Amino acid sequence: MDFSSKLLEQAVDEMSQLPGIGKRTALRLVLHLLKQPEEQTLRLSDALTKLRKDIKLCRNCFNISDTELCEICANPSRSAEIVCVVEDIRDVMAIENTGQYRGHYHVLGGKISPMDGIGPSQLTIKPLIEKVAEGKIEEIIFALSSTLEGDTTNFYIFKQLEGTNVKTSTIARGISVGDELEYADEVTLGRSITNRIPFENSMKG
Amino acid sequence: MDFSSKLLEQAVDEMSQLPGIGKRTALRLVLHLLKQPEEQTLRLSDALTKLRKDIKLCRNCFNISDTELCEICANPSRSAEIVCVVEDIRDVMAIENTGQYRGHYHVLGGKISPMDGIGPSQLTIKPLIEKVAEGKIEEIIFALSSTLEGDTTNFYIFKQLEGTNVKTSTIARGISVGDELEYADEVTLGRSITNRIPFENSMKG
Repeated sequence: MDFSSKLLEQAVDEMSQLPGIGKRTALRLVLHLLKQPEEQTLRLSDALTKLRKDIKLCRNCFNISDTELCEICANPSRSAEIVCVVEDIRDVMAIENTGQYRGHYHVLGGKISPMDGIGPSQLTIKPLIEKVAEGKIEEIIFALSSTLEGDTTNFYIFKQLEGTNVKTSTIARGISVGDELEYADEVTLGRSITNRIPFENSMKG
Repeated sequence: MDFSSKLLEQAVDEMSQLPGIGKRTALRLVLHLLKQPEEQTLRLSDALTKLRKDIKLCRNCFNISDTELCEICANPSRSAEIVCVVEDIRDVMAIENTGQYRGHYHVLGGKISPMDGIGPSQLTIKPLIEKVAEGKIEEIIFALSSTLEGDTTNFYIFKQLEGTNVKTSTIARGISVGDELEYADEVTLGRSITNRIPFENSMKG
């Protein structure tokens, strides 16, 4: 693409670094910004700069936070004995949206994935093991994606926890509520039969 | 969506102001930036700020430019007698990419569209008429999209040019090169028959 302006080219180049945004989309976005009042662009770049410079990770759970301790960890009405291990902050938001969980979280920051060069040391596994070693945690709930990487990460942490008396569990896999049985994949359907639950339990929540 | 951080929320809010980017995509983009080195975010916000503050429009053709007069208008080897009227800078880039055009452009900055509240006064139609009045332009080529708004804009400018002896033309509408005839719409096919060209001409370019 030939640009008539270096400034435009730079903006499009930087914008197209974002995942899923190619040069054409980047150009469309940048030209849109140029048509809007100047303040909109300044607010955007200001918000991005501030975010990157001032954002903190909660020192307890590694959730994104404006303060040293995130709102969830600082909330005395939530039980610190149960810790839900998730991949990233979007999973925290998704679980929080259900309103069903009153424990703490632990954000790993990714999954073990040798293909992408991500090993255990790049994730916050060590602080989790240390928290468990302090003896205040009763149950760890694994809530990672049900992929090869997710399962590997679960298993790695599980192995690290051997010898401690913490209870481990994983979120239930099964047919989504509202889904037709015939369209479910065999693995999910198989697991949902193996891990069937008492009918009375299915009427809760 | 509940955010654990005000900074994050602001960045997502601003990002989701962009066309085609919803809250979820914005969150994905922002979290991606957080995982990348700090410089990437700073370069992006810097490029956007600079673009918005320093960008100029060419005083002759209203193309985006770093200088008073854009590269095309400043190029002495291009003929200023032919002016191609386009909607925005992306059209300039598209036509430039063909390598077939050696004249000047005139960027309108949009199309007349009462539905979107865009009238002739918001576009650069007046400067175009003034350029024509100076008598140096021989031909105006309309290259707007073939939509109701595009046709309206063409016709409005055409009417404004009455009384001047400038030649007006419009880019050819027809079946795209490589397209199957049977899938073409009737209007395009009809026009391509009405405006048929000598066979010898079709072998050029």
